[in-house]
Amino acid sequence: MRIAIDMDEVLADPISKFIKLYNRDYGIPIDTIIDPGNEIYHHVPEHINHKWFDYINERGFFRDLPVIEGSIDALKKLQEKHEVYIVSAAIEFPKSLEDKIDWLGEHFPFISWKNIVFCGDKIIKADVLIDDRIKNFSGFDGRKLLFSSPHNMLVTDYERVDTWQQVLEKLL
Amino acid sequence: MRIAIDMDEVLADPISKFIKLYNRDYGIPIDTIIDPGNEIYHHVPEHINHKWFDYINERGFFRDLPVIEGSIDALKKLQEKHEVYIVSAAIEFPKSLEDKIDWLGEHFPFISWKNIVFCGDKIIKADVLIDDRIKNFSGFDGRKLLFSSPHNMLVTDYERVDTWQQVLEKLL
Repeated sequence: MRIAIDMDEVLADPISKFIKLYNRDYGIPIDTIIDPGNEIYHHVPEHINHKWFDYINERGFFRDLPVIEGSIDALKKLQEKHEVYIVSAAIEFPKSLEDKIDWLGEHFPFISWKNIVFCGDKIIKADVLIDDRIKNFSGFDGRKLLFSSPHNMLVTDYERVDTWQQVLEKLL
Repeated sequence: MRIAIDMDEVLADPISKFIKLYNRDYGIPIDTIIDPGNEIYHHVPEHINHKWFDYINERGFFRDLPVIEGSIDALKKLQEKHEVYIVSAAIEFPKSLEDKIDWLGEHFPFISWKNIVFCGDKIIKADVLIDDRIKNFSGFDGRKLLFSSPHNMLVTDYERVDTWQQVLEKLL
């Protein structure tokens, strides 16, 4: 079985990085808990809510993101039984590409370069796609696992996983 | 119909760049015509035939490659009738990624970032794949068009295209 796995908010945590940068640049506290259905930029004052886009386009943003809990161990276990591919819609942010390769090399060195896909549309052939953005499920005809993230908590019509432990229970 | 198109030796010409760099660094003339079945590194003295790998890993190598004749016009025409995606196995060379995005932006500005895929294995879902490397056809279940390049001229068991004009005749 071939399992495709998204990066941001599935393996890597950009939200805590956004909060850190907003704190650094504006000295404003931001709730670390994002309301269901909201993006991080809904939780900052309106005049600086475009800044998340600047941050994400800066070289280095993606290089030191925290790893989502349980993901390293889960991918090792999945890889023992299945083909595991990382599939990130990273092309939108060209300065993220090398950072993402380096980040994967640091935290997921057991994933070969052959098993990494950076794309726009996720036009991939796989049996399972684990992703937090339902737009990436469009056109995908395999099993879709929606990885819980604040912004997707109001979505009801997909099979949902809240943790990597739940992914393992479903796929091993 | 979805058409996936490789970059190197299909849209971009790395071979003439290799020849230029070998000339610059070693002052040696290299045949601009590569023997059928050979790679460029088969045409340089043995003690420097590993250099092509250094060149390809240098930032900037892919930024100023010549465009393969007829490809810009052909992709414009294909895009009028079909979904066109660029699919390059670029992840092997992380320093090529931004260069390739910039190169596409310069020569193929009509291709959206959504239609670009950088990968290792080409695990894509498409109806046609145009590629010069038969290894990229492995696992692909659509129509395979082998784009002629010196190194693949001894391969006989694939549908072959020698020029972009021929591609248009087959796909329009």
